[in-house]
Amino acid sequence: MAKLKGNMVIGQSGGPTAVISSSLAGAVQEAMKHDEITGIYGMVHGIMGVLKEEFIDLGKQNAAVIEGLRRTPSAALGSCRYKVAEDEYAKILEVLQKYNIRYFFYIGGNDSQDTAKKISALAKDRNYDLRAIGIPKTIDNDLPITDHCPGYGSVGRWLSIGVRDAGLDTEAIGVVDNIKVIETMGRNTGWITAMTALAKEREDDAPHLIYLPETPFDEEKFLAHVDSVYSRLGYCVITVCEGLVDKDGEYVTASSRSLDTDKFGHKQLGGVAQYLCDVVAEGLKIKARWDKPGTIQRVSIVCASKTDLQEAYMVGQMAVRHAAEGKTDYMVTLVREPGSKYKCTTGLVELEKVALGTKRVPDEYINQAGNGVTDAFIEYARPLIGGPLPEYARLEKIPVKV
Amino acid sequence: MAKLKGNMVIGQSGGPTAVISSSLAGAVQEAMKHDEITGIYGMVHGIMGVLKEEFIDLGKQNAAVIEGLRRTPSAALGSCRYKVAEDEYAKILEVLQKYNIRYFFYIGGNDSQDTAKKISALAKDRNYDLRAIGIPKTIDNDLPITDHCPGYGSVGRWLSIGVRDAGLDTEAIGVVDNIKVIETMGRNTGWITAMTALAKEREDDAPHLIYLPETPFDEEKFLAHVDSVYSRLGYCVITVCEGLVDKDGEYVTASSRSLDTDKFGHKQLGGVAQYLCDVVAEGLKIKARWDKPGTIQRVSIVCASKTDLQEAYMVGQMAVRHAAEGKTDYMVTLVREPGSKYKCTTGLVELEKVALGTKRVPDEYINQAGNGVTDAFIEYARPLIGGPLPEYARLEKIPVKV
Repeated sequence: MAKLKGNMVIGQSGGPTAVISSSLAGAVQEAMKHDEITGIYGMVHGIMGVLKEEFIDLGKQNAAVIEGLRRTPSAALGSCRYKVAEDEYAKILEVLQKYNIRYFFYIGGNDSQDTAKKISALAKDRNYDLRAIGIPKTIDNDLPITDHCPGYGSVGRWLSIGVRDAGLDTEAIGVVDNIKVIETMGRNTGWITAMTALAKEREDDAPHLIYLPETPFDEEKFLAHVDSVYSRLGYCVITVCEGLVDKDGEYVTASSRSLDTDKFGHKQLGGVAQYLCDVVAEGLKIKARWDKPGTIQRVSIVCASKTDLQEAYMVGQMAVRHAAEGKTDYMVTLVREPGSKYKCTTGLVELEKVALGTKRVPDEYINQAGNGVTDAFIEYARPLIGGPLPEYARLEKIPVKV
Repeated sequence: MAKLKGNMVIGQSGGPTAVISSSLAGAVQEAMKHDEITGIYGMVHGIMGVLKEEFIDLGKQNAAVIEGLRRTPSAALGSCRYKVAEDEYAKILEVLQKYNIRYFFYIGGNDSQDTAKKISALAKDRNYDLRAIGIPKTIDNDLPITDHCPGYGSVGRWLSIGVRDAGLDTEAIGVVDNIKVIETMGRNTGWITAMTALAKEREDDAPHLIYLPETPFDEEKFLAHVDSVYSRLGYCVITVCEGLVDKDGEYVTASSRSLDTDKFGHKQLGGVAQYLCDVVAEGLKIKARWDKPGTIQRVSIVCASKTDLQEAYMVGQMAVRHAAEGKTDYMVTLVREPGSKYKCTTGLVELEKVALGTKRVPDEYINQAGNGVTDAFIEYARPLIGGPLPEYARLEKIPVKV
């Protein structure tokens, strides 16, 4: 295939993560190696930047800045959650033509892949030679086909460490603060919450109960689970997904304010941990408190998974390499190699197969009681957090004799 | 003074911290050096362990376990928040006599120092030779006389990093998630919340507004502050203390359930961030979301301050050294040496001067508008977090020309 000469543009979309700018670094550093990619532009606040013609010249940055993105959290270009109106696609194409942009990269989740797909379709329709490649990013880990999503391993490591620490806190002070509920992110799937299971080193370690939206919430069963752990240990640590749903598939808690619903129709979630504390206090008369680390969990880089950082870089790099080879209308995927030792390479999947799709936590990863995960999940998830958790000491219970 | 031969006991009390077990390690390793201290016992769940005669033999632990406590968060012995009834002090003394305990160390906040003081007073009264020394611990940093409290620097470092990351998140996605409120701990004082100011590197960095309980909350002023930042930047990051009070000194939010009030009369706090989001949504019609890292902030050791870890160890060590020298009825303090380079040694203060006392954030550390801190506070606080925050990259806004 002949080399397609022109500029490239790259954007970041959706919730920022610890590693989304590693993907940006991977793409930019790869693009530098290709003569046919003449200018390297960044969209300011994703697709909104294209509509407003707000770009940052990434090709003219100091090399140390681009390299530094690999240890910088959040979206360095600015992000957005903007649903492009049907009549805005023409304007987007016009801007791409005006800037002679021939390579289009969008780092994001399923909404973002849908946007990339539509832009590419219009370009084809108008006979404008454009190569569009999606770069996966979502802590939610809910994109189909790819083994997992960049961002997921780091939120998993952050929560494994955080829940282990908060669990040790409850183990120490559980004599008065009996129940702790920790709310994790996860809009429609429990992938993130499931990761908290990696905090557990011994049978009785936190988290004792894990609730995912894949299992409809049942208050009676929940109280029985809590009562059982509390009776045995004297305390209980619970992790729960912000997107928990009831038997009718309705969110257990979600904001009803119209300004809290975005243009994709997504409601702002949060508050389920507090709700579960109320259920415990009323149902069991036991003191319960909650933690909701919120956006800190998704974007914090101090506990980032080395594996995730490296894979996020790799998907950015491979997107550019594939586009230069002539590929278009694909998203880069992460492909886990068979074998006992974890190894991950990349693949490609048609954008139309991932756009707007959602991968839920499968049944074989959820335990029978619907309050924990299976060994199969642990086997899937453990390599993603990039190595063992920091090692802690534990006193031996040597009694004192008079 | 003649050497007092006998056993020692040490306990941990109140909310666990990242460094409370470093103090334990300091005390135990120091005690090993003193022949007159024959047995080294740990109270299981603080003073409750004495009442129940539940001790762990710390002198018989593997040396690597004691050393490992210096990198292990939470209270390794278990903690408590137990108000000793007047008629239980006699029982405590009885147990101390039974085990020939001559050295009593209690790691905790002001309630714990009060407990230590009362036990010592009763021992004197009964002519039982006992040396009682308090070891300071509280993330709240509200103990009087000591320059600061072990635990405070680490929660400060955790929050500086967390708020900076969450701030970068809002900077990136503030076009849709406009306002973020982050709730910090702090029962009656704003020391912890004030620490979030260290997240700020440039004028417009998060946090943009900081609310402490030392300044009564005024909804109208608050909305004006938020509106002003939002109008200028398009987003706003706010940090707020869980113990925020109104003009009558009442908590803005606190649990009204009786089971959420402990025996010291302390109500369970939390929920103020959500409340402020509601105020913003209703008053300004702007979308707001909240993070409440809760107990993770106080106990996490991944971001622990090296200075704090070392000082926590030192106060444990010095408590034992002073008791061996014959001192009793003191709490160890941290003393900041004069001079431009931060240096901290220890001192002693009578237990009665710290028991139940509370040090609030002084006026000279709070800005005029009551929504931020002064340079004097920054100068006080910065050395405590143990070195600069991790370095991040930032893209230069180089425009693209057609």
